Amino acid sequence: SAPLKIFTCNSNPELAKKICQHIGIPLGNSHVGKFSDGEIQIRLEETVRGVDVYVIQSTCDPVNQHLMELLVMVDALRRASAGVINVVLPYYGYARQDRKAQARDPVTAKLVANLITTAGADRVITIDLHAPQIQGFFDIPVDQLIGVPILARYFQEKQLDQIVVVSPDHGGVIRARRLAERLGAPIAIIDKRRPAPNVAEVMNIVGEVKGRRCIIIDDIIDTAGTITLAANALMEQGAQEVYACCTHPVFSGPAIERIENSNIVEMVVTDTIPLPPEKMLDKMKVLTVAPLLGEAIVCVHEQQSVSKLFD
Amino acid sequence: SAPLKIFTCNSNPELAKKICQHIGIPLGNSHVGKFSDGEIQIRLEETVRGVDVYVIQSTCDPVNQHLMELLVMVDALRRASAGVINVVLPYYGYARQDRKAQARDPVTAKLVANLITTAGADRVITIDLHAPQIQGFFDIPVDQLIGVPILARYFQEKQLDQIVVVSPDHGGVIRARRLAERLGAPIAIIDKRRPAPNVAEVMNIVGEVKGRRCIIIDDIIDTAGTITLAANALMEQGAQEVYACCTHPVFSGPAIERIENSNIVEMVVTDTIPLPPEKMLDKMKVLTVAPLLGEAIVCVHEQQSVSKLFD
Ligand SMILES: Nc1ncnc2c1ncn2[C@@H]1O[C@H](COP(=O)(O)O)[C@@H](O)[C@H]1O
Ligand SMILES: Nc1ncnc2c1ncn2[C@@H]1O[C@H](COP(=O)(O)O)[C@@H](O)[C@H]1O
Repeated sequence: SAPLKIFTCNSNPELAKKICQHIGIPLGNSHVGKFSDGEIQIRLEETVRGVDVYVIQSTCDPVNQHLMELLVMVDALRRASAGVINVVLPYYGYARQDRKAQARDPVTAKLVANLITTAGADRVITIDLHAPQIQGFFDIPVDQLIGVPILARYFQEKQLDQIVVVSPDHGGVIRARRLAERLGAPIAIIDKRRPAPNVAEVMNIVGEVKGRRCIIIDDIIDTAGTITLAANALMEQGAQEVYACCTHPVFSGPAIERIENSNIVEMVVTDTIPLPPEKMLDKMKVLTVAPLLGEAIVCVHEQQSVSKLFD
Repeated sequence: SAPLKIFTCNSNPELAKKICQHIGIPLGNSHVGKFSDGEIQIRLEETVRGVDVYVIQSTCDPVNQHLMELLVMVDALRRASAGVINVVLPYYGYARQDRKAQARDPVTAKLVANLITTAGADRVITIDLHAPQIQGFFDIPVDQLIGVPILARYFQEKQLDQIVVVSPDHGGVIRARRLAERLGAPIAIIDKRRPAPNVAEVMNIVGEVKGRRCIIIDDIIDTAGTITLAANALMEQGAQEVYACCTHPVFSGPAIERIENSNIVEMVVTDTIPLPPEKMLDKMKVLTVAPLLGEAIVCVHEQQSVSKLFD
């Protein structure tokens, strides 16, 4: 069968190295830099003719640069006669622009799907899309993995008692239920309501949290407004302590300050988006998705189902 | 016929305003900003249903952001039922990555053409593509305008005598000849040769420059290495003085310092790429392409030939 090679762009080279270590192959040689005027310059420094190629790149901040690096890399691979081009997007940027929330909105998540396909990708592997509908934006195969098993294993090892898993909104209930099942815990849901226009939102909690250790789970934490307000609401309702976890730590704007000053005792995230040292707090714990992606790549390369990765 | 509207993204809003003033219509209302995490947020603030839309955007530095703004804008316009979407790219970024100069190079100029088409553009209007072949990268109509008439008018008004127009390389001869014809002047060509590998290039000048006022013309000036070395070579050969001009002042890296310290007495450019105040030298002159693009938009809108714009 075709040989397997892994390349990376600049969003997440550490994760790419860990994936290669997990599989036991070297990272493909390439140069992903910039010309003097800021245009991306990519050079593949080894042959990819007929190769089953996997490109590791998260489209995280600076999102447009990281997206364009990916597109130029795919273009170079295609023109260099790569066999199959698999795009591994641990974090899929622009996923929240997935519908016309208002008249004349763009649907950038679909645009990005079209751009990736146009560049020449044959398959996408990703983790926890903000909306599962984004899979349908592609006409090529999309393997969507989930971060819950990784988060669940971490909390299992802590052997906490009296857990309740909390979804910060109605959209996250399925995810919360998945974590709760693995931890043998009940769930609670935060029900945000605006009593009247221009009146502040009220956070009602559906479910029992009094005396409980709450684990709030979300897919993306961006400015951390929702999650830190949720933590407050939970403590006000008599929670014993509040943990928070997510797959994608976007952590933009006031996020770090808010988390630092919040009631959250521990913030558990994965490395789909790398955290620079200045964003690392003592109360943060980063779990790696490298084994998950490594296993997924091996499965896809050997044409086996990835279903075991959901256990 | 369909109404005409002009929108702009963030690369060149001043030029867009000047184009609107030239045509005598207001700039279309839209918001082109960023979310907290750096993702582009675009809102069209007026209807475009059935409208003949022109989007003004140069894909200059930061090129990936400006390109993505354009793509998201086109996506929003298409989904808002715009009639025809005309993309006006005064400067087409990535134009120098127009072929595989080495094995396994990407051809990013073609990738960009595909991205613009995929987003939903119906036509492209641009000025001085680095390579005319890039027109063929598109399957939609491309109107390529030229900056030479604007540069020529400026030098005509100066009423210089003893002019010779200089092409800094063999690729630029056609452009130099166009300017020379308009100025009634002869041309000269700089012939760069490397006598042996690892020996510095020698600049031979083909044509008579002694005692002459030289006008070097190029399409893009990026780091200004070529043009400032050419100016030195011309002065060494007894030129009286050296002017330089180009359509696209990329001016990256050491460009400004090199131009400042060079023999060039005046550097004439256009506003296809805006020059921030810190890049403006006393010896620079910026000519606007707004009337050229304004006329082109009117011609295209009225389905008339743009050929008169080449006079
Ligand atoms: N990068 C972003 N940052 C913040 N909000 C966004 C971003 N992208 C899209 N949105 C908005 O988030 C909303 C969708 O989020 P959600 O309801 O959680 O799916 C829409 O109103 C979008 O306009
Ligand atoms: N943005 C850029 N800055 C500098 N050089 C570039 C850029 N894009 C492409 N190139 C290189 O410029 C060469 C083509 O320039 P030219 O021969 O003038 O068409 C190729 O070797 C490209 O790799």
